[in-house]
Amino acid sequence: MRLITLTSDFGLDDWFVGTMKGVILDLAPEARIVDLTHAVRPRDVRGAAFALMAACGAFPRGTIHVAVVDPGVGSERAAVAVRTANAVFLGPDNGVLSYALRCQPPLEIRQLTNARLWRQPVSRTFHGRDVFAPVAAFLAGGGRFRRVGLPRGDLTRLAWPEPRPTARGHTGEIIYTDRFGNALTNLPAEGLLDWEQAADWRLQLPRHRTCPLGLFYQSVRPGAAVAVPGSSGWIEIATNGGQAASELALRVGDPVRLRRQRR
Amino acid sequence: MRLITLTSDFGLDDWFVGTMKGVILDLAPEARIVDLTHAVRPRDVRGAAFALMAACGAFPRGTIHVAVVDPGVGSERAAVAVRTANAVFLGPDNGVLSYALRCQPPLEIRQLTNARLWRQPVSRTFHGRDVFAPVAAFLAGGGRFRRVGLPRGDLTRLAWPEPRPTARGHTGEIIYTDRFGNALTNLPAEGLLDWEQAADWRLQLPRHRTCPLGLFYQSVRPGAAVAVPGSSGWIEIATNGGQAASELALRVGDPVRLRRQRR
Amino acid sequence: MRLITLTSDFGLDDWFVGTMKGVILDLAPEARIVDLTHAVRPRDVRGAAFALMAACGAFPRGTIHVAVVDPGVGSERAAVAVRTANAVFLGPDNGVLSYALRCQPPLEIRQLTNARLWRQPVSRTFHGRDVFAPVAAFLAGGGRFRRVGLPRGDLTRLAWPEPRPTARGHTGEIIYTDRFGNALTNLPAEGLLDWEQAADWRLQLPRHRTCPLGLFYQSVRPGAAVAVPGSSGWIEIATNGGQAASELALRVGDPVRLRRQRR
Repeated sequence: MRLITLTSDFGLDDWFVGTMKGVILDLAPEARIVDLTHAVRPRDVRGAAFALMAACGAFPRGTIHVAVVDPGVGSERAAVAVRTANAVFLGPDNGVLSYALRCQPPLEIRQLTNARLWRQPVSRTFHGRDVFAPVAAFLAGGGRFRRVGLPRGDLTRLAWPEPRPTARGHTGEIIYTDRFGNALTNLPAEGLLDWEQAADWRLQLPRHRTCPLGLFYQSVRPGAAVAVPGSSGWIEIATNGGQAASELALRVGDPVRLRRQRR
Repeated sequence: MRLITLTSDFGLDDWFVGTMKGVILDLAPEARIVDLTHAVRPRDVRGAAFALMAACGAFPRGTIHVAVVDPGVGSERAAVAVRTANAVFLGPDNGVLSYALRCQPPLEIRQLTNARLWRQPVSRTFHGRDVFAPVAAFLAGGGRFRRVGLPRGDLTRLAWPEPRPTARGHTGEIIYTDRFGNALTNLPAEGLLDWEQAADWRLQLPRHRTCPLGLFYQSVRPGAAVAVPGSSGWIEIATNGGQAASELALRVGDPVRLRRQRR
Repeated sequence: MRLITLTSDFGLDDWFVGTMKGVILDLAPEARIVDLTHAVRPRDVRGAAFALMAACGAFPRGTIHVAVVDPGVGSERAAVAVRTANAVFLGPDNGVLSYALRCQPPLEIRQLTNARLWRQPVSRTFHGRDVFAPVAAFLAGGGRFRRVGLPRGDLTRLAWPEPRPTARGHTGEIIYTDRFGNALTNLPAEGLLDWEQAADWRLQLPRHRTCPLGLFYQSVRPGAAVAVPGSSGWIEIATNGGQAASELALRVGDPVRLRRQRR
């Protein structure tokens, strides 16, 4: 029996997530279900795509990841299943799966067209419960991937902001802020600099601020900013003991610049 | 081993929900536990009753639903167990179970009087942990329903606002607003109109507003309001891409009127 | 297979908690995982210590409790495992385990030094995923406690505010406020007074207020304050149907005084 993860913008205030679990466990009583997060802002496809990319590497081979941020539910948008070497991804074809698939290239893509697997009658507004949950349960119970529906050529992809090299480093941008106020950038933590020589580098922030690089939060004095190699693979901006994003007014999309200093 | 769902106003900020699960898993190590929601507003018996009604149909036969919104805990209010054809419901006898029981009529009602099943010593303020959790575990492990306590004649019922027919349609009210700002009404999604002819109908909202009916959120232009057949079985008011409840100032209890238009 | 509980300041908005669960279930597919709470305020070691102490008594013998509130992650702070008669506790050695260990004295303390058990490469900022989760999974799967690392002499302890006897009672302080606005004190619910004679006692609150003692919330009129024997073992201050902490402006650290009245 395989593991199922759930990512959505459903929140935990209503019964939506619990209801999806009820449908899954009705069909696959032994399934293990893990919530990635349900606090994606309503209809924030990019935020969900990012969370799924950041987390999916930690899960066992064969995990079934279900991502339901689905403003087009009930319209003609397709629902898809994607098989990779490590996992299966289920979601609407609106880009929500596309960041995760940067790390795990698709081996097979299918559109969810086999209505016999769905919960009937299918509502127009809650495919998480009526389509994605039962298909996930079907796969978790050992159902064949090809039975979920017809082959499909490609997927909707969200643009990924690639960092660009500069004369003395790289330029990038802030792509996510977490609950600690840490601001994740699109600069990879590995490959751009030798962290043993972190003292040679600075990260330029918006509004003419700059911060040193360091290996962990407490490598600077309390309250000071530091750019560390973040746990999800990107350089992230923190303040030791503080909330960098609010204290430094950092927002998703703000530019940053990694520069080697003159000596 | 049966499934247990938990619904409460305990929130997730403290250790209350986790503690109930510890008690359940101590007594029934194989039990599966699903949270419906713990974000019911403190002491909002009606909100919990609504969530339980909206979700319980998605769970497997034999599921044990525990609902603990219990302002009278420790007083003389009774704790009850209700067996239906599909499920068992446990909770204080304050109406929290009564909406779910509109769909699943009680076959047997018992008061939780068998203190040998409880966690000792029983606190005066946390029967979720000390009474409901161990009784749920007892039943999940195969314990007989009749052992939970003495038969009881009837239950406290919350009034349900029934919609009323009018000359050209039905009048109802808003009964719940969800995290997307969708406003659920008490007008059933099925039976009042033929959705193929939705264009013939309008929903009158408070403050002289009106909105069309449609099958899904994106059936109107972005930002516009639409009344759709909601996934829990009621007509609900949404705005495409927005938060209808705040944008249209809709509140629980506000009247709505479904009208067929003259042609 | 043993039970694992998770307590942290990670919140549920990001993917951190889900990721820890992915790592655990990769290594110990049968593990049962229960969230105590992840809403500890960022870096509030004392808040997490309190939640763990309040909840751990409800879990089965052998449960593995993981507490990750870890502002010093990546620095030289040690990570530890503590075995008691009832449980195993894992966390950074910053005091987060120390309140729970007041009730369950340590039988064996080890520092997490066996890097072969960890997820590689180990990040500098997310030991919850890379160190604590895999060590918890190792123990849940039956791994020997002594293999987690080298013996360690003692632990960082947080000061615990002991109540003090006075001429006519005891003086204490508020140590926690919960989501219902109940204010928990450090005055033990058992041993200081005979609750059958509760009418003989009063609790003095800050700002010259006072409240009666009672066995449950509804023992006073709606809106009135009452001090009840709380479910976690301390006297707590509530208002019947209200939010005592905000209504009475009660804060952690505020003094309270339990006094027997003259008759």
